[in-house]
Amino acid sequence: MIYFDHAATSPPLHSALKSAECYLDECFYNPSARYAGARDVSLALEHARETLLRLVSDGFAYTLVFTSGGTEADNTAIFSAAKRGNVVTDEGEHAAVYECFKSLKAAGGDVRFAPLGRDGAVNAEALISLVDDKTTLVSVMHVNNETGAINDINALAKRVKEKNPRCLFMSDGVQSYGKIPVYLNGAVDFYTLSAHKIGGMKGTGALIVKKGIALTPRLFGGGQEGGLRSGTENVFGAVGFAAAAQERFAALSENAARISALRETLWEMLNQNVFVRISPEHGSPYILTVAAKGMRGEVLQRMLWEKGVAVGTGSACNSKKPFSRVIAACGYQSDVLGGVLRASFSPETSEEEIVFCAHAMNECAAQWKA
Amino acid sequence: MIYFDHAATSPPLHSALKSAECYLDECFYNPSARYAGARDVSLALEHARETLLRLVSDGFAYTLVFTSGGTEADNTAIFSAAKRGNVVTDEGEHAAVYECFKSLKAAGGDVRFAPLGRDGAVNAEALISLVDDKTTLVSVMHVNNETGAINDINALAKRVKEKNPRCLFMSDGVQSYGKIPVYLNGAVDFYTLSAHKIGGMKGTGALIVKKGIALTPRLFGGGQEGGLRSGTENVFGAVGFAAAAQERFAALSENAARISALRETLWEMLNQNVFVRISPEHGSPYILTVAAKGMRGEVLQRMLWEKGVAVGTGSACNSKKPFSRVIAACGYQSDVLGGVLRASFSPETSEEEIVFCAHAMNECAAQWKA
Repeated sequence: MIYFDHAATSPPLHSALKSAECYLDECFYNPSARYAGARDVSLALEHARETLLRLVSDGFAYTLVFTSGGTEADNTAIFSAAKRGNVVTDEGEHAAVYECFKSLKAAGGDVRFAPLGRDGAVNAEALISLVDDKTTLVSVMHVNNETGAINDINALAKRVKEKNPRCLFMSDGVQSYGKIPVYLNGAVDFYTLSAHKIGGMKGTGALIVKKGIALTPRLFGGGQEGGLRSGTENVFGAVGFAAAAQERFAALSENAARISALRETLWEMLNQNVFVRISPEHGSPYILTVAAKGMRGEVLQRMLWEKGVAVGTGSACNSKKPFSRVIAACGYQSDVLGGVLRASFSPETSEEEIVFCAHAMNECAAQWKA
Repeated sequence: MIYFDHAATSPPLHSALKSAECYLDECFYNPSARYAGARDVSLALEHARETLLRLVSDGFAYTLVFTSGGTEADNTAIFSAAKRGNVVTDEGEHAAVYECFKSLKAAGGDVRFAPLGRDGAVNAEALISLVDDKTTLVSVMHVNNETGAINDINALAKRVKEKNPRCLFMSDGVQSYGKIPVYLNGAVDFYTLSAHKIGGMKGTGALIVKKGIALTPRLFGGGQEGGLRSGTENVFGAVGFAAAAQERFAALSENAARISALRETLWEMLNQNVFVRISPEHGSPYILTVAAKGMRGEVLQRMLWEKGVAVGTGSACNSKKPFSRVIAACGYQSDVLGGVLRASFSPETSEEEIVFCAHAMNECAAQWKA
C-alpha cells in the first residue's frame, strides 16, 4: 500500500514508539504522584515539553501546554482569547478553528472571516483591513491543510500588532510543525500542534503560548499543566511526540527539499488534460492537491485504493460534507470541487511511490472517461 | 516494587496493549478517512464503543462518547447540563467535577454542595433536600476516590427525578467502572469513565449519555463522535480501554470478593494504636485509606517508597494541596488530615504484597515515633 494521506494522519515513527513505550510499562506512574518513580515520569514530561517548545520558539518567551490533540489546543486558545469586541479569522481554517469561530458567531459575537486567494492562502490585505481597535483575537493557520498554501504568520502577526497592539494572534501549526521551517517571532501568541501528523501518536497535541498571557482552562480539574489543562498527563503521547519532532526537525530542510521535488514530479507526470492543480508551487512540500475535472473525488479515491494507493479527498475531518468549504473559498466551481484529491507525503515518501501514484491516478481518470 | 496506588493510575494490561498495538502500526489510518483501510479502523472504534457501553448499560437507551479522559468527560457533561436555575453536587467529588462546579459558582451560578458522612459517602437526605424544581443538574460520584465510599447512584438518581423529573443526574464512574457491579437504571443521565484506572491507557476516557439528551460539545471541530467531541479519534486508546474493561468485567465479582478480603487483612495487620481507618467496610474493595495520627502522610509515603511500597496520600490530582479537602469534609481534624495514606489495589494484588505492605507501614510508623 502506498500511503499518501499523511496530512490526515501519519504512522507513528519507530523513534517515537521506542522512546515512549516505557511509559506504558515500567514507567506507568501517574506523574502527579509524589514518590520518586512518579517524579522521574514527571521529569520526562518536562523534558518532552522543553524539547517540543525549543524547536520553534524561545523557551524563555513561550511555554507549552500539552493537550489531547490539535483540536483541543485550538479550542483552548480561541475560547480563552476571544473577548468582547470582535475576532478575525479566515475562510481557510481547519474545522477545529473554524467551528469555534462559528460557535462564537452563533452566540452573537462579531466574527469576521477574511477571504482566500486562489491557492488557499489568506488575503493578507483583506485580513488586516478587518482588524480594528476592538479586535481581541486574530487566527490564521500556518499551512493550509487542504491546499498546502503557507501563510507568513510572523509577518501577519506583526502587522496585526501594528494596527492593534492588544490584539492576540494565534496560528494553527498542525500542518507546519516539523514540516516547514518556523521560529515564532514574539508577535505570535498561540501556536497549536498535533503529534500524529508528524509521526507521533494520536491523542496528543500541544498549545504553545506566549508567557504572560492569561489562559482560561478549557478543562477544569486536578490542576495539571500548571492549572491550564487538567487531566492525568498522557506521558506516552508527550514523550513520543517529542521524539518524533526531534527526528523531523533534525532533517527538516533536506526532507522538505527532496519531497518538494517529488511533489513536482508527481504533478508533471499527471495528465494535465484531466487534472487541475490547486496547491501552490511555494506551499508545503508535503501536500499536492489536484482536481479531476468533472469527476467525483471519492470515486477516484476508491479506485486508487483498489490499485494500492491511499489519498485524501480534502480534510478527513470534513468527510461528512459533500465538498470542501475551503476549496470553494479559493474560488473554484462545482466541476472542480467535486473532483478534489489530496496526495500528502511524509519524509519517507519515495520516488517509486510517486511514480506509481502518478500512473495510478492517470489510469483511474482514464477508466472514468471510458 | 509493590504498587498500591492503582486509584491514581494502573499499569496497562497485557490484553489492552496486545489488542490495541495494531492501531499504532499497520492500522494507523485516520478513522474519518473514506478508504477501506480507514473504515476498518472506524469499525474497530465502534466495536470498542459498544463493548464499553453494554458492560454497564442498555445500549439502546444509552450512547458513549470517547474523550481524552475522565476529566474531559466530566467537564463535557457538567458544562452541557448545567443551566440557569441551580445545580447540586457534594463535597466529596473529584477535582474534575468539583472544579467545574466551582467555576460555575465563580461565574455567579447557584451551586449547592451536599455534605458527606464520616466515610466520604454523600449525605443522601441533605443532597435531596437541596434539589428543587429549578435544579438542572445533580452530580454525585459513584465511588469516592479518596475513601472508597460507594454512593447508590441508581437510587439517588431516582429520588432526584421523583422530586424534579426534568433535572439531569450525572455520576463520575472513574473509580467504579470495572471495579464494582453497576448497571445504569435509566435515571442516571451521564456516567463518566477513565481507561487508565482499570488497565487501559492514559489519554482515553468516555462519557456515557442517555439517548435523547442534547449534549453541547466542549470541543468543536471536524465533527467526530457524532459531532459531540471533535478531534482525531485515539483508536489505540479506545480499543485498549475496551479490552481492559472486558478483562475486568469478566471476573468482576470474584476479584472484588478476593480484594475485599485482602483489604481487611491489611487493615487487621496494621497497628491500630497508630492507624485510624477512614475507608468504610462496605466501600470499594480496591481502596483502603487510613491515617497515621499526628504524622505526615507524605513523609510516610517517602519512607514506604524506600522500602519498596508505593502508596498514595489522597488524590494524586490534588498533590499540590496541603491536605485533602475531601477527608476534611468527612469531619476529621488536622491530626488525622496530615497523616492520610491511601493504599489502592488491583485484581492482581497478592496476599504477599498485602502482608509486606502491612509490615512496612507499621515499621515506618514505629520509626516515626522513635
